[in-house]
Amino acid sequence: MLTANNNYELLIKQAIKYRPETVIIANEEHYLTVKEALKNLPIVVKAGKDAIVAAMEDSKIDVVVAAMVGYSGLAPTLKAIECGKTIALANKETLVVAGDLIMRKLQEFPNSKLLPVDSEHSAIFQCLVGEQYEKIEKIWLTASGGPFRGKDLNFLQKVTPKQALKHPNWDMGAKISIDSATLMNKGFEAIEAKWLFQLTPEQIDVIVHPESIVHSLVQFTDSSIKAQCGLPDMKLPIQYALYYPERQQNTWQRFDFADYATLHFEKPNRELFPNLNLAHEAMRKDGNMPCILNAANEVVVQAFLNERIGFLEMSSLIEKALQKVDFIEKPTYENYIQTDAETRSFVANLL
Amino acid sequence: MLTANNNYELLIKQAIKYRPETVIIANEEHYLTVKEALKNLPIVVKAGKDAIVAAMEDSKIDVVVAAMVGYSGLAPTLKAIECGKTIALANKETLVVAGDLIMRKLQEFPNSKLLPVDSEHSAIFQCLVGEQYEKIEKIWLTASGGPFRGKDLNFLQKVTPKQALKHPNWDMGAKISIDSATLMNKGFEAIEAKWLFQLTPEQIDVIVHPESIVHSLVQFTDSSIKAQCGLPDMKLPIQYALYYPERQQNTWQRFDFADYATLHFEKPNRELFPNLNLAHEAMRKDGNMPCILNAANEVVVQAFLNERIGFLEMSSLIEKALQKVDFIEKPTYENYIQTDAETRSFVANLL
Repeated sequence: MLTANNNYELLIKQAIKYRPETVIIANEEHYLTVKEALKNLPIVVKAGKDAIVAAMEDSKIDVVVAAMVGYSGLAPTLKAIECGKTIALANKETLVVAGDLIMRKLQEFPNSKLLPVDSEHSAIFQCLVGEQYEKIEKIWLTASGGPFRGKDLNFLQKVTPKQALKHPNWDMGAKISIDSATLMNKGFEAIEAKWLFQLTPEQIDVIVHPESIVHSLVQFTDSSIKAQCGLPDMKLPIQYALYYPERQQNTWQRFDFADYATLHFEKPNRELFPNLNLAHEAMRKDGNMPCILNAANEVVVQAFLNERIGFLEMSSLIEKALQKVDFIEKPTYENYIQTDAETRSFVANLL
Repeated sequence: MLTANNNYELLIKQAIKYRPETVIIANEEHYLTVKEALKNLPIVVKAGKDAIVAAMEDSKIDVVVAAMVGYSGLAPTLKAIECGKTIALANKETLVVAGDLIMRKLQEFPNSKLLPVDSEHSAIFQCLVGEQYEKIEKIWLTASGGPFRGKDLNFLQKVTPKQALKHPNWDMGAKISIDSATLMNKGFEAIEAKWLFQLTPEQIDVIVHPESIVHSLVQFTDSSIKAQCGLPDMKLPIQYALYYPERQQNTWQRFDFADYATLHFEKPNRELFPNLNLAHEAMRKDGNMPCILNAANEVVVQAFLNERIGFLEMSSLIEKALQKVDFIEKPTYENYIQTDAETRSFVANLL
């Protein structure tokens, strides 16, 4: 089964190539286009977000690759857990927004498994194979530093969306590319790591590593550090999640020290990129704070992409949202929906 | 139980501090000195190499730390395997000389376990926790490069033992410090790794890493690489072997990226340090070749320390021994003893 949100063209192309039994296009506007394009193939075409959630009940599905952007991944992921699926989680916002809900759901449905696809979390997950989680002392999430590493305040004030979309090491979608430029992506990953690996905020550190060869590191309570490394290529973490616990042989390009004679590491600049601290603070306060963080971020990133606000304004607006939107210590699913809506409208009013 | 070869002073000091039930001094000349020093303590004092071998039968011993220098570790290690002990192997020559014998013995006595203590092998062993050995594609043993990294032929011709004994990162005994300066240590480690991790010579690579923070790396057949890292301190690999499979919490100094902002990697210079190739060739030919390599090396290192030969002559003499001493494809224990003696006398005659 294949699903897509808006990108019906790629959905059609992939459907013709891989011949899934069913395709679902979330945006119902494109239903007829997809239906028409696939009319001569034995493929069921459905549309709508609810159809994606309902599809989780299909008993033929073993693994769900949850790669929807932002908040939208939450409902299908919760449903996939209820249906006992293995979930390869490529959508980090799901855990950011509602990590406790997801983790409680996983305990309730122990047949379900949540496997990380983010390269950093896959790295940590791989480092933890055969190890005990309670022996983790700390982790370092590595960050490429994004396209604006080493730039100054003056430069950042004038940054355009086009500049921000150019990531040095990874070719990604627009939203995550901006999140990467603002380091919000790394802040989200910290929150994601907290839930995935049962860590306290104090155990999670970020280190800038421009070459993106070391994908993350774990330090154990005996002082030993394990790192997972390789060329920056998402194929590995995706394959690892799909075949886990097996390692599947392949002939992809191998890492060569001759191309990486020097690896650099530096502390992130938390003054120029305040999103890191905002995310850490949201993680520390917990409750619906990460949900506010995510919703505010989605709105400001879109506003920046539309050139309605500048690069630095994004963090300021998120900070305001974290200060002003009502804090809920133990949010329910309904609280999350409400917080999300409230935050979006709060930030939209500030634009 | 504590044992020593010649260093009776340290043996006495440690015996007084740790109060073992028994101490054994291999060199019988020092027996009376040790006996006298410990006469008021409830400690049995024994002497002689055979006493060390016989001591392996003591049922109170769970773990044997095999840290004897060079060839002398072979007999006690074989005996320890027969007695079903867990062996923390700090003596690499044992596996270099007679890896196949040791591995066959381990299969014969499956209660026995062999755990590496060398920092490089401990690193690989840690990277392999929870992984399947048959999914190893290759390993990199990291090498500091020793005190003469980056030097030229002219410099190496005039090197003194004093210069060679100064290792940049590790404080070690004389023999292993010279082996480190000539890179024979790394050649030995390659052979050791072959046996410990069931690798072919082609799967074993060496990469020079002057900071000694990455202790070694494993690449799996899916292209993923795992590395074990930390400050260069032998306490960790020793503790890991003693407590394995548990990680034991400690308060040792932690690694800090602020102190290691840049990590360097380079290919070893195999022309200036031909021992690497000699060792690889001996590993490839197998049989008694690694035994010849080790015996010749022990003689030339001693001759270099005594200032009878120069730094570069060491490799030349080892190469001659590998060419001239009789090759035995499937050596028995007796063959090893004979090869060892023959090689020593062959090289001694060349001095």
